[in-house]
Amino acid sequence: MSGGSRPFRVGLLGHGTVDSAFAALLPRHADRIELLTGLRPELAGIVTRGSGSFEELLDRSDLIVELIGGIDPARDWVLRSIQAGRHVVTANKQLLSRYGEELWEAARSRGVQLRFEGAVAGVVPVIRVIQESLAGATIDRVHGIVNGTTNFILTEMARTGVTFEEALAEAQRLGYAEADPSEDVDGRDAAAKMAILARLAFDTPVHLDQVRYEGIEQIQPDDLEYARELGLELKPIGTAERIDGGLSVRVHPAFLYPGHPLASVSGPYNAVTVESADITEITMSGPGAGGPQTASAVLGDVISAMIPPASTPPTSRQLEIVADVISAFYLHLEVADEPGVLAQVAHVLAREGVSVKSVVQRGLGEQARLVMVLHAVLESRFAAAMEQLAGLEVLRAPPRAIRVLEEEFG
Amino acid sequence: MSGGSRPFRVGLLGHGTVDSAFAALLPRHADRIELLTGLRPELAGIVTRGSGSFEELLDRSDLIVELIGGIDPARDWVLRSIQAGRHVVTANKQLLSRYGEELWEAARSRGVQLRFEGAVAGVVPVIRVIQESLAGATIDRVHGIVNGTTNFILTEMARTGVTFEEALAEAQRLGYAEADPSEDVDGRDAAAKMAILARLAFDTPVHLDQVRYEGIEQIQPDDLEYARELGLELKPIGTAERIDGGLSVRVHPAFLYPGHPLASVSGPYNAVTVESADITEITMSGPGAGGPQTASAVLGDVISAMIPPASTPPTSRQLEIVADVISAFYLHLEVADEPGVLAQVAHVLAREGVSVKSVVQRGLGEQARLVMVLHAVLESRFAAAMEQLAGLEVLRAPPRAIRVLEEEFG
Repeated sequence: MSGGSRPFRVGLLGHGTVDSAFAALLPRHADRIELLTGLRPELAGIVTRGSGSFEELLDRSDLIVELIGGIDPARDWVLRSIQAGRHVVTANKQLLSRYGEELWEAARSRGVQLRFEGAVAGVVPVIRVIQESLAGATIDRVHGIVNGTTNFILTEMARTGVTFEEALAEAQRLGYAEADPSEDVDGRDAAAKMAILARLAFDTPVHLDQVRYEGIEQIQPDDLEYARELGLELKPIGTAERIDGGLSVRVHPAFLYPGHPLASVSGPYNAVTVESADITEITMSGPGAGGPQTASAVLGDVISAMIPPASTPPTSRQLEIVADVISAFYLHLEVADEPGVLAQVAHVLAREGVSVKSVVQRGLGEQARLVMVLHAVLESRFAAAMEQLAGLEVLRAPPRAIRVLEEEFG
Repeated sequence: MSGGSRPFRVGLLGHGTVDSAFAALLPRHADRIELLTGLRPELAGIVTRGSGSFEELLDRSDLIVELIGGIDPARDWVLRSIQAGRHVVTANKQLLSRYGEELWEAARSRGVQLRFEGAVAGVVPVIRVIQESLAGATIDRVHGIVNGTTNFILTEMARTGVTFEEALAEAQRLGYAEADPSEDVDGRDAAAKMAILARLAFDTPVHLDQVRYEGIEQIQPDDLEYARELGLELKPIGTAERIDGGLSVRVHPAFLYPGHPLASVSGPYNAVTVESADITEITMSGPGAGGPQTASAVLGDVISAMIPPASTPPTSRQLEIVADVISAFYLHLEVADEPGVLAQVAHVLAREGVSVKSVVQRGLGEQARLVMVLHAVLESRFAAAMEQLAGLEVLRAPPRAIRVLEEEFG
């Protein structure tokens, strides 16, 4: 797989969680990327604030990945990379929400790509979708849960009744909050992300300083108790929306009614809803920050910069198509109202290795029913059990089954 | 805005709901697309099965949009468009799930783009996200609700207790089901979409005939009654997943536990969850089929074909950033346990034009509280009311407020 192709050298500015994850991810996907793009990606080197020469790395790189964070030296290095004709991929929300126009203008005039999916909502592909999929739609509003720390804290407070301080400590223990969580909990992190989304969705310059933000420090446990009674979910919400001829961009905790697409987004998850008369609305959700997730978003951007015209590559595999899979089932039996029915049914199920998770027996006489949820089993075994059940005299109608997806999320 | 730019001529093969919507959408967005791409899109003409010459339209088009549906003549016309060096955008799931490899190979060898976001889940950008955003992730499983008709029918059956036949009639009345709904209700429509998603997610050839599918015709109202008791939601689920060294692609109704990201996707909505160890999982949801929505997905593809390297265009507007917006509020007051408190509070709110949606009065003595949900009001007016409330002697602590998002979805 290697050997023939020209290498594509990726220079990495870091060093933290995301760039370690990226440095590990790149070689793992090199074969597939070579197949996809005709170029074999390789790490040209890593430069951090304290070690290595940026100039030397730039010289031997085709593309620069900036994961160093903050403004200085990130702004200078990104600008110089662009001016040297290199594509740049960054996940730096502070930089883009304050100096985005300068960098986008530099990239346009130099004809290079500046990609930044990892800057907002981790692997949730909201940047690409707003910039590309929705290029043909007029966007009216963007609502987002774009900070996983505060969403986790509010979810914990609602779930367990603890205070803000206790939920924050739990978030820190689980790695969902940093040692200094102030930019997350006061809303400033989400404000930077909403500034970027607003800029893209509304084609108007938006600076971080123009975003109003409030944090969640003042939320009390009994606010969440009352909310439960009122049927509301409390979420950290960023909003960018047209108002008359203007644009409002803001971040604050807000209650949602249960039908809202963001109401079910819990824990450290992020999600963004884009509303437009052209499309009604679409919602994207997934894990927010997190080294591996953000690294995956960064790698998606690197690949896009390597092969701008999207094409469907040839298939690289010839996987066997599997017909018999493992499924859990709901089983509905109309049965005779007599002793021993459950035993007969259970005997058939056991013979085919089908085990029972829960049973409800209901009704009398002509209404008697046995409704079960069964543990997962190979479908062919279940089909054999169904055939035997259909032959039982105690069944008043053919058995009915519906699959149950067993995975639990959230 | 017009005049200077070179025109980009879009030839349309139709005629139905989606292509009427597309023909209306294109001129509406022409200015913005010209700004984005430097080319001004214009409709070169429309050819249908019965009218117009395909050869003449091809001659005068830079890109062909195929919305004619079915295999014949769509397969021949798409292939000839590609061979003539034209980019093609299609929403034809039957064609791609049966002859996709032939068409993708033709596009690759001719160096043109073949885009097809509209073929699966309408405007939900699942094709682009799997092909581009997740190019750097190894996908383990795709679960999708990719047929809005069956999702609507199952939602109606669960909500109202009607039979399959009654829910289908309601779907037809509302335009969510066609006069001949057989391909939707028997699972074949979803099977074609899952074949396409499986092909992209797993880099392996998948033909429609390899997808196992079951419909929803056999679902009984009492299945949904028992499901409610068991805490389950019934959805039409398409699955593509690795199993050992192989791939299973299938469509059938299935029960979901409430935490599953697809459990809350109701009515005619579509949604797709992509799982990968690299990213945990992401979910995208939105309206499925529908003329304007699919037309918007098609237009997004046309724009991408016009400007393959994604760049962030200059801002085209300078919207005023609005600081004062209208919000609804939850208001929490710790009050003295004495007569006339509510009247004093209500008087302050009324003075600032804040009206009350609901009130809960609770507790005695030191525990007495007044908790309200208020109707939407300009935030500056609400802030003025808060300031006056804080000055009331009957308040035992500063008033607390949290915003309530008022829109209801779903």
